[in-house]
Order: sequence, then structure tokens, then C-alpha cells
Amino acid sequence: MEEAQLNVVLLRHTPDPELACAAAARQCYSAAGVRDLQEKMTPEKVVALLDTVVRGGHHSVLEHASFTFGVEGVSRACTHQLVRHRLASYSQQSQRYVDAKTVKWVVPPKVKANGKAYEEFAKCMDSTLKAYAALEELGIDKEDARFVLPNAAETKIVVTMNARELLHFFEMRCCNRAQWEIHALAVKMLQECKKAAPNIFKYAGPTCETEKICWEGKMSCGKWKNIEGAQLREKGIC
Amino acid sequence: MEEAQLNVVLLRHTPDPELACAAAARQCYSAAGVRDLQEKMTPEKVVALLDTVVRGGHHSVLEHASFTFGVEGVSRACTHQLVRHRLASYSQQSQRYVDAKTVKWVVPPKVKANGKAYEEFAKCMDSTLKAYAALEELGIDKEDARFVLPNAAETKIVVTMNARELLHFFEMRCCNRAQWEIHALAVKMLQECKKAAPNIFKYAGPTCETEKICWEGKMSCGKWKNIEGAQLREKGIC
Amino acid sequence: MEEAQLNVVLLRHTPDPELACAAAARQCYSAAGVRDLQEKMTPEKVVALLDTVVRGGHHSVLEHASFTFGVEGVSRACTHQLVRHRLASYSQQSQRYVDAKTVKWVVPPKVKANGKAYEEFAKCMDSTLKAYAALEELGIDKEDARFVLPNAAETKIVVTMNARELLHFFEMRCCNRAQWEIHALAVKMLQECKKAAPNIFKYAGPTCETEKICWEGKMSCGKWKNIEGAQLREKGIC
Amino acid sequence: MEEAQLNVVLLRHTPDPELACAAAARQCYSAAGVRDLQEKMTPEKVVALLDTVVRGGHHSVLEHASFTFGVEGVSRACTHQLVRHRLASYSQQSQRYVDAKTVKWVVPPKVKANGKAYEEFAKCMDSTLKAYAALEELGIDKEDARFVLPNAAETKIVVTMNARELLHFFEMRCCNRAQWEIHALAVKMLQECKKAAPNIFKYAGPTCETEKICWEGKMSCGKWKNIEGAQLREKGIC
Repeated sequence: MEEAQLNVVLLRHTPDPELACAAAARQCYSAAGVRDLQEKMTPEKVVALLDTVVRGGHHSVLEHASFTFGVEGVSRACTHQLVRHRLASYSQQSQRYVDAKTVKWVVPPKVKANGKAYEEFAKCMDSTLKAYAALEELGIDKEDARFVLPNAAETKIVVTMNARELLHFFEMRCCNRAQWEIHALAVKMLQECKKAAPNIFKYAGPTCETEKICWEGKMSCGKWKNIEGAQLREKGIC
Repeated sequence: MEEAQLNVVLLRHTPDPELACAAAARQCYSAAGVRDLQEKMTPEKVVALLDTVVRGGHHSVLEHASFTFGVEGVSRACTHQLVRHRLASYSQQSQRYVDAKTVKWVVPPKVKANGKAYEEFAKCMDSTLKAYAALEELGIDKEDARFVLPNAAETKIVVTMNARELLHFFEMRCCNRAQWEIHALAVKMLQECKKAAPNIFKYAGPTCETEKICWEGKMSCGKWKNIEGAQLREKGIC
Repeated sequence: MEEAQLNVVLLRHTPDPELACAAAARQCYSAAGVRDLQEKMTPEKVVALLDTVVRGGHHSVLEHASFTFGVEGVSRACTHQLVRHRLASYSQQSQRYVDAKTVKWVVPPKVKANGKAYEEFAKCMDSTLKAYAALEELGIDKEDARFVLPNAAETKIVVTMNARELLHFFEMRCCNRAQWEIHALAVKMLQECKKAAPNIFKYAGPTCETEKICWEGKMSCGKWKNIEGAQLREKGIC
Repeated sequence: MEEAQLNVVLLRHTPDPELACAAAARQCYSAAGVRDLQEKMTPEKVVALLDTVVRGGHHSVLEHASFTFGVEGVSRACTHQLVRHRLASYSQQSQRYVDAKTVKWVVPPKVKANGKAYEEFAKCMDSTLKAYAALEELGIDKEDARFVLPNAAETKIVVTMNARELLHFFEMRCCNRAQWEIHALAVKMLQECKKAAPNIFKYAGPTCETEKICWEGKMSCGKWKNIEGAQLREKGIC
């Protein structure tokens, strides 16, 4: 059983993403054209404007910057969650076309840490691969043979999101309540974003960190207790 | 191995979906208010207006009618495709919370029709379920144990789409080029829609039927050859 | 100068909108099918489930209920803002096709309350209508003559949103920071929604009311000061 | 009366937009990772792949390339249409904040070509501006004074769309059935796109040109008659 490793590459993004968003924000309040606005905008002005925009929640201008990631080493369970974020674009490796005979597997950390569980898991992956190969030999097409492939099968996916959607994604998925795999993916994506556009993503992450509020109510992970001044709340109960 | 059966129920839809869309269409061209418009609209007028709207491709007014389906007996492979239709709403059975020890399986027809393949398939599902149960006994949570569950595992999902998106969905997924499972799902959904709103869905389906054109080029299934007057085409090649 | 009056009619909505959303929420956590789930769900269970869903921010299940409004007596300024809410469907009276010679006008309350301003305003509307009529007599089509029509010109529009988007819309537009006209529209729409689905819209409105937090920072209207226990905050500043 | 001039600037776009889309397309069918795929892809391969993708209508991979335009010299009538394209991002000059006392005007070509109409039009714009200034002097805020501003008032807007949505936009708005102003805007945007990504936008435009079919039925402009081999069709009538 070969294990897959999570790998996240920021393939490309809108050039000068922070200037792009800041100039668009200025356009709303200025009589000048956007090209003039962005030429005259100092780096300090960009930082100040983005701070106002991001902190005040006026995020629509952040849609003008897009980020494209190459993601490898994630399970099909993870991508089934991922693609539920609908304000985004995806191109995913297809099990209808790509042969899975040498597929790698995503192993949950708690399985890895449990010797007997790991053994069961590995045995299951091996017998599954044998069944997959046997089906192909019996003349079953990949698109039907893949029905035996488990959630653990590695997949690769290209993901494009704009900065506004990314902020929402990080708020949801960097939260401890998210599943460990999409949580790990989100954390890596956020690291890349912070390098490319630090002022846009300065306040990105779960609300316990950015707002000092956990909104999960009784579903909370409890992390808020370790954050000074943080509160546990729900809508309608204040 | 217990097999799942595809089951599609139209749970509910916008009341008077055809009147809803026809009255909205009239609003664009009339000085009167929409309530007056819909009160004065005869059934014949509704049919005539929808015919113009649907045939002419002016589909935005069809967004005012929504349809909600309960879908059972589909595989996780199918729903991973399904949820890629982003202009829709989904609530899906979660493998993080619902125990899979008695899960049913979706068996591809070509596997079912092939004795030896069916045997391999059934054996694989059985050993997978044993691994799943073993992992749970070893203290692995459902959200991690599910990594061994295959695409074939049955899932249930609630789907809401408006009529415009449904027309697009049927054009894509009632086409023979779609995979058999989502094709079967789309055909059943279309049957339900035709009962509820026959004039909206009169020209729904693959373009070989509705336009007498197959746009798939060399990827075509060839069905167009059996449709009188139908053509095989691609964008830019006429 | 004839004045337009704001009029909002809830034309139709998904039948049993609260049961629709509650049953979809249950589907995520249950092995049973959605039809069984909704048949077995008591009214009390629906209320309890929606309370959890709405307060906890797990709003995706609320997308299964849609609401369609007929809106009259709003200005083109208002609808230009309104249609920026992109997760919604619109059918609007077209100035390309509907003659404006008897159009009514939306008069801002502050203009109405200011005698001289009202006089200027009315004079301007009258001379505009004369110009419009003159252009038509000179052979100019409606689609070009309408270039002289002001923002104040009344328009009618059919609007469909699902409950999740409506909650977002009410959070934004029932806030005092929204412009008076779209604020008035949102308040009327919320009144209708509360009648049709009280448990979905129980905690709808600006965050000063629902969360006891104003997120507008220095842009705040100050209303939070009159709400016991309410706070003024921004992202990143806690 | 100062006239506004349409001005469209492609401010920025995803770097290497054609490689971005082609590599994403390859990811769907390849076991390799996307970074390897794009490094190995020759320019010829990119062109060939995009040709297949665009002609075959498999446009989802084109979403990975985004284009941001600065648009000036358009009327509020035009932007009210423009922002109805919901799969796009906009930042528009706000009449609530930007003073209109020196606003320019968009004059329809047919008004310009008609001496008396032009005179009426100019007179109306002048008296409107006087009313606007008078209202401000009477203490009316810009957000209310703007109710007298006509559709002809110039606005500026920053627009971001991905290539898939742009193809749809050009199909709709480069069609002669679109209004002259948004038609002119779309034609200029397409010119910019063709320079930046010629292989993505090779077959962009109205269907009479790209498919040799006019789908407008009896609403057709008749242009198809001048295109060799072109047909007039509607859905359901072949």
C-alpha cells in the first residue's frame, strides 16, 4: 500500500492581487478611471485600504483577485466535500479515464497511529486493488471498475477561487470542526495565500481567531477557551 | 451484498410553476403589476408564452420555478458528479455521521451482466464491510473508517434546482455521453418534471433530440444518425 | 408628477418551506430516505431542528425553500442595487419595451419633506417626461429615448431568492447603513417571510439585533448603543 | 453637455491564461500532477487541446483564467444590463459618494444623428444637472439628489469574468439583438481578449458566426442570411 502525501501548489494568481482589489475599491468612491487610480496608489495606501475593506467585511472587491492551486494527495472523500464550495472552479482527475492500478492511498492519521487498524486498512486497500485489476481483466471498463475504489483513493484536482470565496473557505475549513483532511488542505492553501497577498489574508481563518467568537455553540471544539477574551456564541443568543 | 435501487421522488416544487414563469416573462414587457398579469393570464396564454420562451432560449424567467427531489440508491461516484452542478442546492447523507455497516451497494449493469465480475465485485464489497466493522471495533471513528468505503456505497441526497438549471442538466446528462448512472438519474428526474410542468420541459433532453444537432464531434455516440434530419457538428466547424 | 408607492407581494413560495428545510437537514444525519423522514417529523421537531440550523449558521439546508416576490413602486436606483445580489433570479420591466410616458416617480422622503426641493424635483420630472415624449415624436425608439429617464422612474420586478440568500439579504439590507429605499424593500420582504416561515426567519435582520454586534466599525449608525449588551466590533479587532 | 466616450482597458488577467486552462484540461485525463503537466506542455499542444475544448463545448476548464476590465464611458442603463451577468464580479462608481455635477453623458448614436433630437436631449441633460445642483444646495444628500440623474449619466465599473463566462457573454452580447451600447462594450472586450488569449476566444461571438445558426427565430436580425450556409432555427423546430 503506497501512501499519498498532501501537496498544494499555488500555480498562479491574478498579477498584483492586492493592487487589483484596492484599485477596484477606490473606483467605487472616485470620479477618476481605474487605471489612473491604480497608477497613483502608493503601497501604503493599498495596505490601508485593504485593511478597511477586509476588517469591515466589504469583501466584494476581493473578487477581482483569483488564485489557482494544484492539489495532490487528497482523498475522494475530501474532494467530495471540497467541490461543495460552489463559487469556485475545479478540474479533477477522472476515474473514468485514469487507470487506478497504481493509485496511492490517503491514510487517516488515527488509522496510522493504530497498528491493528493500519493493518486492516492496508489489507483492505490491497484486496480492493486486486478486485479492481480482476474486473478490468474480465472486460469491465474503468468507469465501472472504479465502483470498488474507496474514498481513500488519491485524487488530484485543480482549484480556482477568488479571494472573497477563499476568505469564506478558510473561515469554514480552518476551523477545528472541519474534518482533518480538508482542514489540512485549507491550512496549506492559506499559507500560500498569505505569501502572495498578506494584506488580503491577514485576518483569514476560523472566527475564534479573527473575531474572538466561536459561533458553533454546543458543537464547539473548545479552542476559544484558550484565546484571551474569546466568547462562545450563537445567533439569537447573545 | 445488498443492492441499492435508484429511487427518485419529486418532493415538492414551486406552486403553479408554469404560471409563475409565464407571469414573470410578461412582467418584462408590461406596464401592469405581476399579480394582475398572472390573474388575467389564460392557460392558453401560459402555454403559448412558455413555448416562445423555451424555444427561443430566453430561459432566465424559468428560474422562478424550483423543484426539489429526494434521491436514493445512487453511488457516491454519481453524487460526486452531481454536485458539480453548482447552480443547485444539496443536502446529502453524511458518512461522518451515518453508520455504514448495513449500507447497500450500487452495482454497474455491466458488472451485473458478467457472472465472474459480479462475483469479484460482491466479494470485494463483503470484505470491505468487514474491514469497516473491524476499524470501528478498533476505536476508529466513522469519519475515518469510511475511508475504506467504495464509490459503490449507496448514498441519499436531497436536490433542488430551478427549471433553467434543470434544462441545462437534462441537456448534459440525458445525453448518451453521460455516465450510465447519472444518465439514469437524469431520465427519472425529467419524467417527474414533465408531469409537473409539461410545457417547461417539452423540449428538454440531449441536443440530438431537441435541436437535431449532436455537438460532440468525434466523441459522439452516433445516436444522431438515427434521427431524421439530424447533424453532427462542432463550434467553428459548420 | 405622479408618485409611486412601494408594494411588495409574496407571490408564491415552496410548499411547507419549514418542513422542506428540516427534512433536508435530517437527511444529512439519517439512514432513512427523505420522504420517510418528512412524514415522521412532528411540527415540534421541525421547530427544534430549524432553531439549531439557523442559530448555528448551518444554512445550506435553507436553500431548499424559495420565495418569489412581486415588487412595484421602486426606483431604477434601487433595482440596480438589488440585482447585485447574484444568488437570486430577476425578471424586470424593460424600458426598451414598456412606454414611459405615464411612468410614476419614486420621491426620496427627504426631498418630500423639503418644500423647495420637492418643487425642483417635480419640475425636473415634468421636463424630463416632455423630453422623452419629444424624442419619441422625433422618431427615437423607446430604447434610446429612455436615456433621459432618471433613477427616480418607477420599475417593477419579480424576485426569487432562497431562504439562505434571503437571510443574507436581510442582514445586509435591513441594516441602517443600507440606503433607505432598499432598506424599506427589505423590511417589507422580511415581514412577508416571517408570516410564511416564522422559524426560518426568526433571527433575520441586521447583526446588531441578531448577534448583538455591529460590525460596521466607524461606519456604524450607532443603533447598537440602544441595544442592551450590544458591542461595536470589526474583524481582527476584538 | 459633455459627451462620454466608451473606453475599455484589460487591466490584468491570469498569467499564461491558455496554459492555465490547457493544463487543467490535461489534469482530468492524466495520472501526473498539474505542475508536471504544464511544464511538459508544448505551445502546439496547448493550441490543439484548447481547440478541442472550445469547439467541443467542454468549457469548465476555461474558468481557471480570469480577465479584469476597467470600463469607462458607459451609461447606467448599460451597467444595469451588464450586472445581470451574475457569474462575474463588479466594482462600480457609486452615485451615493461621487458628486455628479461634472458628469458626462452617453448619447445614443440615433439621437446624435438627429439634430432636433440631439437638441432636446442636450437641453434635458442641462436642466437635469441644474436640478441636481439645486437639490444639493437645498441640503439634499447626493444619495437622494441622484434620483434626478438619468440613465444617460456616465458611470465607471471594474469587471472581472472568467473565460467561460466571457464566451457566454460574447455569444449573447455580440449578437445584433443586444442593445447597441452593451454590444459595443462586448465587441471591445472581445478585441482585448483575442489579443490576450487568441486560442480561447477564437470561436467567440454570436452563434450566427460560430455555429452558422441563428437561434432567435422570428426575432432574428437577419444577419444569418449573409453568412454562407447559415440557418435560422429554434429549439424543438428543426
